[in-house]
Amino acid sequence: MSEPELSVPRLIERKRDGQALSADEWRRLMVEYVADRVPDYQMAALAMAVVFRGLTNEELVALTGAMRTSGEQFPPPTGPTPRVDKHSIGGVGDKTSLLLAPMLACLDVAVPMISGRGLGHTGGTLDKLEAIPGFNTRLTLDAARRQLDRIGVVMVGQTPQLVPADRKLYALRDVTGTVESIPLISASIMSKKLAESLTGLVLDIKTGSGAFIRDPAQSLVLADTMIRLGEASGCRTIALCTAMDRPLGVACGNALEVAEAIEGLRGRGPADLMEVTYALGTEMLVVAGRTTDRSEARRAVEGVVRSGAALERFGVLVAAQGGDPRVIGEPARLPAAPVIRDYRAGRSGVVAGIEPRAVGQAIVALGGGRTRADQAVDPAVGFLIETRLGAAVSAGDRLAVIHAATEEGARRAAVALDRAITIGEPVEVPPLISHRVTAAGVESLA
Amino acid sequence: MSEPELSVPRLIERKRDGQALSADEWRRLMVEYVADRVPDYQMAALAMAVVFRGLTNEELVALTGAMRTSGEQFPPPTGPTPRVDKHSIGGVGDKTSLLLAPMLACLDVAVPMISGRGLGHTGGTLDKLEAIPGFNTRLTLDAARRQLDRIGVVMVGQTPQLVPADRKLYALRDVTGTVESIPLISASIMSKKLAESLTGLVLDIKTGSGAFIRDPAQSLVLADTMIRLGEASGCRTIALCTAMDRPLGVACGNALEVAEAIEGLRGRGPADLMEVTYALGTEMLVVAGRTTDRSEARRAVEGVVRSGAALERFGVLVAAQGGDPRVIGEPARLPAAPVIRDYRAGRSGVVAGIEPRAVGQAIVALGGGRTRADQAVDPAVGFLIETRLGAAVSAGDRLAVIHAATEEGARRAAVALDRAITIGEPVEVPPLISHRVTAAGVESLA
Repeated sequence: MSEPELSVPRLIERKRDGQALSADEWRRLMVEYVADRVPDYQMAALAMAVVFRGLTNEELVALTGAMRTSGEQFPPPTGPTPRVDKHSIGGVGDKTSLLLAPMLACLDVAVPMISGRGLGHTGGTLDKLEAIPGFNTRLTLDAARRQLDRIGVVMVGQTPQLVPADRKLYALRDVTGTVESIPLISASIMSKKLAESLTGLVLDIKTGSGAFIRDPAQSLVLADTMIRLGEASGCRTIALCTAMDRPLGVACGNALEVAEAIEGLRGRGPADLMEVTYALGTEMLVVAGRTTDRSEARRAVEGVVRSGAALERFGVLVAAQGGDPRVIGEPARLPAAPVIRDYRAGRSGVVAGIEPRAVGQAIVALGGGRTRADQAVDPAVGFLIETRLGAAVSAGDRLAVIHAATEEGARRAAVALDRAITIGEPVEVPPLISHRVTAAGVESLA
Repeated sequence: MSEPELSVPRLIERKRDGQALSADEWRRLMVEYVADRVPDYQMAALAMAVVFRGLTNEELVALTGAMRTSGEQFPPPTGPTPRVDKHSIGGVGDKTSLLLAPMLACLDVAVPMISGRGLGHTGGTLDKLEAIPGFNTRLTLDAARRQLDRIGVVMVGQTPQLVPADRKLYALRDVTGTVESIPLISASIMSKKLAESLTGLVLDIKTGSGAFIRDPAQSLVLADTMIRLGEASGCRTIALCTAMDRPLGVACGNALEVAEAIEGLRGRGPADLMEVTYALGTEMLVVAGRTTDRSEARRAVEGVVRSGAALERFGVLVAAQGGDPRVIGEPARLPAAPVIRDYRAGRSGVVAGIEPRAVGQAIVALGGGRTRADQAVDPAVGFLIETRLGAAVSAGDRLAVIHAATEEGARRAAVALDRAITIGEPVEVPPLISHRVTAAGVESLA
């Protein structure tokens, strides 16, 4: 099939001047880009024009579709079992994926979770899973599909074959100042999620000072954009906006978070973690098409925790991917930090701030995160931040426990916590879950 | 000297967000870009951010200076002779450079003209000069400087050593939709002109439908921007805004324009060509610092034409650069087209439009121009457009003469002229020279 030559400079000029490109032009641009026939410098200029001009809904659907089909995809479900995923827009202390994947699998919903690694102040599910000795997140697409059929859940990293257009475009955007664009962020996330051939998707839109997008109004626009993209592809999509002005739960750091997730699967996790997990799980059952009654859905997701089924399924998952399932009963088998120190309040007052960015950066400084994609992480280090926002504390009270590789690291981490945790006057604590966004609109939950 | 590493993604983000980069950051960016240590994709994203955000005056001066000093420069004048150039922002039928360079040389002003080739609908001085058998425009910087010292005038193309940053950046902008930016256009032109180490510069800002920038207000902004850049470097800079809603003069096409320029140097060129030439020449004497009395300057530039000195100096120039100076007395020595056909009015009425873009594109179609930088041109082809805007014509009157390589080419050119030349109701003819712009402001001449 011979098509007319694509004049990329003219396409860039049109987007620069605020015109929309056709669906076919976006499709061909992505095909040529992945084939290295459109150079990076033209794609970088186009991405910057999109930062300023945005994309129409039609362009966004076309771009996302072109990226989604740029490589292999999960074949669609063959049986009646719905396939559902949850995606979070980055956070600190967010280990909900580790709970939700086995929980939903117990409810006969298939969960093919393709996750990322931590970068900058935000953690990543793959790093957490790899804190479990032996756990292998590098499965082929075919192996992942077979495991999904067998045990209803698989948790892996993005394979090179999956959505190569996003892989290439994201690497370019990362070094050309074109990351911060709601349409480009939406296309990047949704192309990967839709390549899982999902029945439904729940988005956890983190809001607040520690979130990737700090402006709450922008968070709602991002949620709405991704929901439109999901629904346009027949994937039921719902978003919850959850607080990221403080870390979620107590544990921050890879192995510490795995231990907390296991406690959560026993129903004994911190209240905020449990609340967000149950709320997201409820929506996952809804987008799976199981029920429209959210109270019923909530009872179901709480039920698989109470019965122990979810914890058991987590063990099956760990074992299936080469990990040591004994960590579930014996958390001492997780990597442990040699230096453990209490962090205490320097003055009395009310905890007015637990800044997630500062906590996340302190974890990076401890060696538990990375600033470049190719860095290794120390799974053992991190914090247990026991105090809560709004708590009244006295000088000398223990607020957190530092897990460090060295005494020097522990000392630096204490200084970092001095900056992260503010003790002052009482503050109004933002709601844990503020909005529920569906194709029908935004519902305030606060 | 060790400097902190340049984080180019952060620089791009700052420009994207509307912040100014420092003079030092622009300087280092250009040094690294020319050295291939900043990749094209980052420069393309930055250029697109500049298209949207512009540059502050300080940024513009820094960028232009960094580009100017990215390679070799003409050494500054050593004696008292002022050094002056004229630059035109593209047009059709504009052969004023061929007249002005020898004219000013006769007035003891050194004229080192570094010119370009035609591209798209606009012609280029180098193509015109190369219509003269043997004329060599590819001199080294050193040979050009020596000729300038010897005969006061040299007309050459840009050497690879001169302003390599502009060479590289322009090639990138050309394929990334980032040409249309007043700061980037200004930096590109002025970095090259300032590398000639000029005493003064006159800009011919073409305005109207055939100009590179069609919006007259934008033309004034461009003029003002370039004047500020010139003056900031100690180069007196003045701009005239001249009409490009119709071709300048009668001849359009390389050899035909050389013949018309020679007639002009005899004082016998078309009235509009002579008027624009004298006006620009007047300003060149002013920026040379010779006089502030423009009437006196005008008499001087007219004088060297009347005396025959300018024509004689043109012959010296042609001979110095290897061309055949006999073309001056024997225009038949210029390349001649084999097919010469009259073009006549199809109806009676008033000439309401002679569209320069359409004329320029018709020359390209005849083989006398190019759409890609690597194409060769046929110097012989083109048009003599004898009719003028606003002239009353009768059906059958000769309006133009077509010079073509083939009968088929002549037929196609006639069809192109049908589109280019509109016969209809009387129209108001825009003034030939509308504005004079200096550092002091804009003066309307209409």
